[in-house]
Amino acid sequence: MTVTTETERIEVDSIGPVAIPADAYYGPQTARGIANFPISGIPISHFPLFITSLAYVKMAAARANVRVGDLAPGKGEVICRVCEEIIAGQHLDAFPLDVFQGGAGTSTNMNINEVIANRGLEILGLPRGSYDALHPNNDVNLSQSTNDVYPTAIRLAILLSQEKLREALELLASAFAAKAESFDDVIKLGRTQLQDAVPMTLGQEFEAFAATLRQDVARLGEIASQFCEVNLGGTAIGTGINTRAGYQEAAVDELRAVTGLPMTAAGNLIEANWDTGAFVLFSGMLKRTATKLSKICNDLRLLSSGPRGGLNEINLPALQPGSSIMPGKVNPVVPEVVNQVAFQIIGYDLTITLASEAGQLQLNVMEPVIVYNALHSIELLTNAVNTLRTRCVDGITANPENCRKHLEASTAVATALTPAIGYERAADLAKEVLATGKTIGEILALQADLPEELIAQTTDLQALLRPAPARVGS
Amino acid sequence: MTVTTETERIEVDSIGPVAIPADAYYGPQTARGIANFPISGIPISHFPLFITSLAYVKMAAARANVRVGDLAPGKGEVICRVCEEIIAGQHLDAFPLDVFQGGAGTSTNMNINEVIANRGLEILGLPRGSYDALHPNNDVNLSQSTNDVYPTAIRLAILLSQEKLREALELLASAFAAKAESFDDVIKLGRTQLQDAVPMTLGQEFEAFAATLRQDVARLGEIASQFCEVNLGGTAIGTGINTRAGYQEAAVDELRAVTGLPMTAAGNLIEANWDTGAFVLFSGMLKRTATKLSKICNDLRLLSSGPRGGLNEINLPALQPGSSIMPGKVNPVVPEVVNQVAFQIIGYDLTITLASEAGQLQLNVMEPVIVYNALHSIELLTNAVNTLRTRCVDGITANPENCRKHLEASTAVATALTPAIGYERAADLAKEVLATGKTIGEILALQADLPEELIAQTTDLQALLRPAPARVGS
Amino acid sequence: MTVTTETERIEVDSIGPVAIPADAYYGPQTARGIANFPISGIPISHFPLFITSLAYVKMAAARANVRVGDLAPGKGEVICRVCEEIIAGQHLDAFPLDVFQGGAGTSTNMNINEVIANRGLEILGLPRGSYDALHPNNDVNLSQSTNDVYPTAIRLAILLSQEKLREALELLASAFAAKAESFDDVIKLGRTQLQDAVPMTLGQEFEAFAATLRQDVARLGEIASQFCEVNLGGTAIGTGINTRAGYQEAAVDELRAVTGLPMTAAGNLIEANWDTGAFVLFSGMLKRTATKLSKICNDLRLLSSGPRGGLNEINLPALQPGSSIMPGKVNPVVPEVVNQVAFQIIGYDLTITLASEAGQLQLNVMEPVIVYNALHSIELLTNAVNTLRTRCVDGITANPENCRKHLEASTAVATALTPAIGYERAADLAKEVLATGKTIGEILALQADLPEELIAQTTDLQALLRPAPARVGS
Amino acid sequence: MTVTTETERIEVDSIGPVAIPADAYYGPQTARGIANFPISGIPISHFPLFITSLAYVKMAAARANVRVGDLAPGKGEVICRVCEEIIAGQHLDAFPLDVFQGGAGTSTNMNINEVIANRGLEILGLPRGSYDALHPNNDVNLSQSTNDVYPTAIRLAILLSQEKLREALELLASAFAAKAESFDDVIKLGRTQLQDAVPMTLGQEFEAFAATLRQDVARLGEIASQFCEVNLGGTAIGTGINTRAGYQEAAVDELRAVTGLPMTAAGNLIEANWDTGAFVLFSGMLKRTATKLSKICNDLRLLSSGPRGGLNEINLPALQPGSSIMPGKVNPVVPEVVNQVAFQIIGYDLTITLASEAGQLQLNVMEPVIVYNALHSIELLTNAVNTLRTRCVDGITANPENCRKHLEASTAVATALTPAIGYERAADLAKEVLATGKTIGEILALQADLPEELIAQTTDLQALLRPAPARVGS
Repeated sequence: MTVTTETERIEVDSIGPVAIPADAYYGPQTARGIANFPISGIPISHFPLFITSLAYVKMAAARANVRVGDLAPGKGEVICRVCEEIIAGQHLDAFPLDVFQGGAGTSTNMNINEVIANRGLEILGLPRGSYDALHPNNDVNLSQSTNDVYPTAIRLAILLSQEKLREALELLASAFAAKAESFDDVIKLGRTQLQDAVPMTLGQEFEAFAATLRQDVARLGEIASQFCEVNLGGTAIGTGINTRAGYQEAAVDELRAVTGLPMTAAGNLIEANWDTGAFVLFSGMLKRTATKLSKICNDLRLLSSGPRGGLNEINLPALQPGSSIMPGKVNPVVPEVVNQVAFQIIGYDLTITLASEAGQLQLNVMEPVIVYNALHSIELLTNAVNTLRTRCVDGITANPENCRKHLEASTAVATALTPAIGYERAADLAKEVLATGKTIGEILALQADLPEELIAQTTDLQALLRPAPARVGS
Repeated sequence: MTVTTETERIEVDSIGPVAIPADAYYGPQTARGIANFPISGIPISHFPLFITSLAYVKMAAARANVRVGDLAPGKGEVICRVCEEIIAGQHLDAFPLDVFQGGAGTSTNMNINEVIANRGLEILGLPRGSYDALHPNNDVNLSQSTNDVYPTAIRLAILLSQEKLREALELLASAFAAKAESFDDVIKLGRTQLQDAVPMTLGQEFEAFAATLRQDVARLGEIASQFCEVNLGGTAIGTGINTRAGYQEAAVDELRAVTGLPMTAAGNLIEANWDTGAFVLFSGMLKRTATKLSKICNDLRLLSSGPRGGLNEINLPALQPGSSIMPGKVNPVVPEVVNQVAFQIIGYDLTITLASEAGQLQLNVMEPVIVYNALHSIELLTNAVNTLRTRCVDGITANPENCRKHLEASTAVATALTPAIGYERAADLAKEVLATGKTIGEILALQADLPEELIAQTTDLQALLRPAPARVGS
Repeated sequence: MTVTTETERIEVDSIGPVAIPADAYYGPQTARGIANFPISGIPISHFPLFITSLAYVKMAAARANVRVGDLAPGKGEVICRVCEEIIAGQHLDAFPLDVFQGGAGTSTNMNINEVIANRGLEILGLPRGSYDALHPNNDVNLSQSTNDVYPTAIRLAILLSQEKLREALELLASAFAAKAESFDDVIKLGRTQLQDAVPMTLGQEFEAFAATLRQDVARLGEIASQFCEVNLGGTAIGTGINTRAGYQEAAVDELRAVTGLPMTAAGNLIEANWDTGAFVLFSGMLKRTATKLSKICNDLRLLSSGPRGGLNEINLPALQPGSSIMPGKVNPVVPEVVNQVAFQIIGYDLTITLASEAGQLQLNVMEPVIVYNALHSIELLTNAVNTLRTRCVDGITANPENCRKHLEASTAVATALTPAIGYERAADLAKEVLATGKTIGEILALQADLPEELIAQTTDLQALLRPAPARVGS
Repeated sequence: MTVTTETERIEVDSIGPVAIPADAYYGPQTARGIANFPISGIPISHFPLFITSLAYVKMAAARANVRVGDLAPGKGEVICRVCEEIIAGQHLDAFPLDVFQGGAGTSTNMNINEVIANRGLEILGLPRGSYDALHPNNDVNLSQSTNDVYPTAIRLAILLSQEKLREALELLASAFAAKAESFDDVIKLGRTQLQDAVPMTLGQEFEAFAATLRQDVARLGEIASQFCEVNLGGTAIGTGINTRAGYQEAAVDELRAVTGLPMTAAGNLIEANWDTGAFVLFSGMLKRTATKLSKICNDLRLLSSGPRGGLNEINLPALQPGSSIMPGKVNPVVPEVVNQVAFQIIGYDLTITLASEAGQLQLNVMEPVIVYNALHSIELLTNAVNTLRTRCVDGITANPENCRKHLEASTAVATALTPAIGYERAADLAKEVLATGKTIGEILALQADLPEELIAQTTDLQALLRPAPARVGS
């Protein structure tokens, strides 16, 4: 059914004839998909791990089909060989479909079916399109449906991608922890509601950044592990139509073997065919991490504000002239770009939610937009985290004098007086500090009735960084 | 069909018998709605202007029905009399349905139909439930459907509610403008990216707050005006089934008369039956205003931060002790609550969007949740704006010395040197200021080649608040 | 400092004098909070479990203070006695503050401090306001700050509330499972992309609903368990200022004792003071559940659409007349209200995210709006789930004839032909069915070359509900 | 200061030396930006109209500078010549910066400043980097700041882009209108809440799609017109520092001249420097259009559902095989991709909102992410709308028999009985239809007391498409 000229070949599918570039590995359905979806200009090959994941699934299915006796071992072998090439990063340009597409990923599934068939035919010394020898649907897609292949591949792609994000986050946490250690003795003013509160160290402040990110490294891993459950073998709607008994177990088994990941079958394949809750939760987790990073970057920008008309407690590395008009200005450009990435990820989370809610009956047809938003979120976040570490955090220095100056000018120690003199009198003393411009030390010295020991103890800033000693005997 | 005991009466509708509190004006369908929707505990009467709006619509419909000869004038009169009572604020407790409800507002429409019928019967000296004399569906709802009555009432309710919001915003803008005037001569450091930039006045800063809010007062009004277009007369799906020719025009005409608002008929009644785009756009506009208010409140919190370890350029009124543990602490509690209201409104905008997207075929069944989110947004925003004005902005004072101190310590005037000495050299001088801790004036004095006139001109802060004089002859 | 008249008493706090209703248990700071935050009209007592949770925290702190020797046992006893009253549901009207408030919950913390003090004084036979005997700050709030008490109480409140949600979800899952069992033999058409796909049973369809909800019962529990980690004992910024060594461990210990929940201390108290990531993730999980429920309700509405111009495969119980104009119409009002609740929860999740991102330095001041949105989400969802079960799912019946009719008229079995005759020929036969209006059986009968056994096997609908038998010998 | 080798040149800026590809038009600050922001891999040149817009602004500024006598006419000329080249689409590859960037667009502004300088130097026969002859800051950026140039260019870019979107929408509306005309006599069942309602025509249904989109064409234009107000001339913070009196008016005047668009100066330049409300509102409007398109596509999918197990009232063109496993299946792939685009735009709207809220003091540093989301929204929507028209709507056909079958089987005409026989009796008859399986005509024929004329009138479907004739004499 295939007619070939110098530049194109004409293939015929169940809709009719369609022209394909002569040397393209892809076939008629991919060509239709390209024509039908000229939407964003971003190809699915923008996410190489997604293409890799599709190849893993095809390989597992082929091996399982051979195992249950449905596919000739020779065909299985050639399919697996092409899959290995794809996993090795070859043929990326054979996947030009737009990330936005209707059809619940059918075009993408047929894209890899066709690429495997045509590259396989090439290996077999046959011309592209001679599908009698190796057919995209009847052989490559045997015992499969887009509806189990595609969701399985998305899950794999996220599992593979999030590893890099978690590594990046762990490195960033370590960078914060290293700074925390070096800022251990920088005593400063803690602030709540942007108002002067009580003493702390800059080390404590940075250690908290490390701690909060480490929680997310762990939590991200836990939540990503739900993607190990796949619906491969359920075919069109989860009933396993067009598979043989034993195939589904074999397919998941082989997927575990080829990926080295602890993949398992979903408990209810019909539910797994339409459910996208795992994406919503994982995206919510990415959003949580993005939100933390945004908060941290806001803090870095506040703490480095000024230098003369701001807090100026830390210095961020100067990376580029800050202004086209204001000479000498240096801006916190890296935290700013991280904030923007965070906003993008929060927006992407919403898109994923909307797509998830739009599932109907036995399928969620909106999965392609989930793929794009989930994988782009991971990519943006990974890049942002690495940039934040290497181009900002690693080079942060402290201004210990400014830190101390703010603390000493404040009424922070008034809090420590409360246990001894009560909230109301401590408040009166604090008000006097602010009204007179004197320091709290000066004001305390004027209080005839306060024992010197109390004053000394209260104004010992180091002591205020932790609980007071236990009551003797308690 | 009605059986009455001391405490309840049993009425029968097309589903079967249902018990109603004996003295309730509402009837069986309201009673079913109460039982079917025990969701949020917030009754529709939480929004009195919504109940008022329903009454306006019922009154307009009754008058139109009389006009086209479909309703006996006597019935029309009693319907209008009850509507007037409702508009006057009576019978609010007769509307106990939950704001969350299925049925696209049918329960709410039947609630007012039943209240009008039963209160009308009471006026006529007849017992509740004797609907032969005045029927909720056949008389009160004559020529109407929930699908035209309810969307029309929502539009009216928003039109009426947003007036108060716009008044509140206008007053807040005036409060900022008044402060701007009184801060006219407070010169200070302008900041971009939280970094020292160039000189400005505190008056300019506050005048910008006034200006941005005034734009929104105008824009809100423009966008609200789209609600003057209503689908009253379209009945079930916009085709006007069960109305007489002339009724629709009469109903809109009467609605204009009873409300005094410039109501008009939608251009395509079938479209108007399901389209909720006006809510999405209006909510987007509320979100814009909320976003501006949040930004302004963030600025107020930054400018009043400290007092010793922050910018401390302005003082917000002290409204309450700021902390249960830190005596003397005073927090910017009002801007903080406005931020939270802004976040709520952004969330509500999303809910409205989701509800709008979920319309299907000839109707959007999700309108009740739009009602709740739109009207609550207006209520929250109006209250927040009034609180911000009376409990915060009106009492703000400036710290002119701090303002000037930040400016003078900065390199802000380096920008003004660029036209004369170029960007690179100006940048070098700025760096020297920051490295040495000297002021820019001191550094400039050391530059042997710079004419004194240039230095004088550059360091004249007042001159830097506006463009330089025009070149002679240009 | 307290002056009392018949109707009010005047108390003086660090800001100045303030009038309080004479018989109110609350004191001056609550009164200020009421005046400062007239925002939504929804009081914090709307969430009784939140008030309960505050009381648990106060009780745990008092017991810990006694334990470390900082609080006289007599004072501790009276504090605990009042807390027990509050936990028992008394004094709810003593908590009238608006859910929207600035100050990071300080007003709410002072509300319970004041209520405990004044009710405690009453128990001791002393007049309200005689705080020398029992002081809201110095005694009730001893070793505490809003910044550790409030976040701890929020976590407790969510832990307690989500139990009911999970129970409701479990019951709904069981209701779906029961229906699944009774619909086990109702064979029908599975649909993907709203297009006819392959055979399944109505039982399988409903079982998937049960399965998906059961996953969420488990997952919700896991994610809620992160709320067992609290920052109690960290006081103002997590450094434990104004506590004694040992207090923090004792306080968490006592919290575990009084609540019976496995509460533990956060690993880094400074981080725990500002981090709100747990709320973002939990809210993301609620959003996931809401999204699933919305999808299920969309399916119920589709499957029950018609009755004559729709799918009409199931019947939802008729709860109320569906229309004020269209007699006999019955609408899926309960699924519709659940959809709306889902939209609300997605909006609330956004508000929580925005509030979380807005944390600054040592505190997240936006927690009050997180409280409102998180607790209201749980409340709405719980009510919606219970309503869906009792007023809809329990009463669903099937229309088996319609189910079978759709299946038999379709080309669903064409898929099963592919293994034998290949994709292209199967597609041609399917097209012929649709073009001719014949059934697939009729078309197959015309295919001279197809063995009868194949046709019989393909059209055995029961066999198409699962994988084909394993290949002999494989 | 520039050292050049074969492959690179080293330039020195105020931060230090930096290597640049020898033949690049861009300079050191662009090179730094490339290194600092390796975030998304999407370059700013992805949006050619944005680059064009930057060139328009630079041209207007140069002409204004010459006019007020600040720039030598020869320099002005060469700047304008390069701008013309850029506007003509040349040099697109000279803009490789990532769309995600910190610095509020400074890198982008310096990118075009550097490209103009180096290409200008080339025109003048001078080597790249010899900025004494034409300086990126001192000449090209004269009287400008990123803070006025960049926001002005964004506004221009949106103004130019949205024109194409509006054209696409208008064409789509016309396509729906054309279908409406051809479906004028296809009578069918109108549906509310997915339940059978009352009669309408398929033409009416499609005409409503046309009407709703035409409203948006108009409304989009109105709301886009706010972008004609620009802050050009305000420089760093809106005070016009480093400009001469007269420049700002001249610059806006020249911008009007070079673009042919009715550009005007913002009323308050300080406000205009930080305010991003126009983006929020415009994005809200895009979201409204996206929401309408999503609803329309949901309808198209519902109406074409089946073909045997769904409504099957219309046929969408078959564009590609619908399934890799189910032969003969054809899916509504184009409406599905439009739904996904709509979800993306709703997500993008959220990102824009978050970025807008994050403005601080005199600037909104998050504008780069606004650029990306706004321009990508317009691009996606334009492509989706064009695809929907050409690959779906233009090819839709009706199934008139199915349309009529659903209507005739339903109880739709029962509504029309109400005026004559009352709601309750009409409801009883409708219930009888559904219970017996008879048609409404058959049931009516059994009602002895109903006049034949009434029955005839009620069952005249054409008459039910509009209001009844006016009452004689009214």
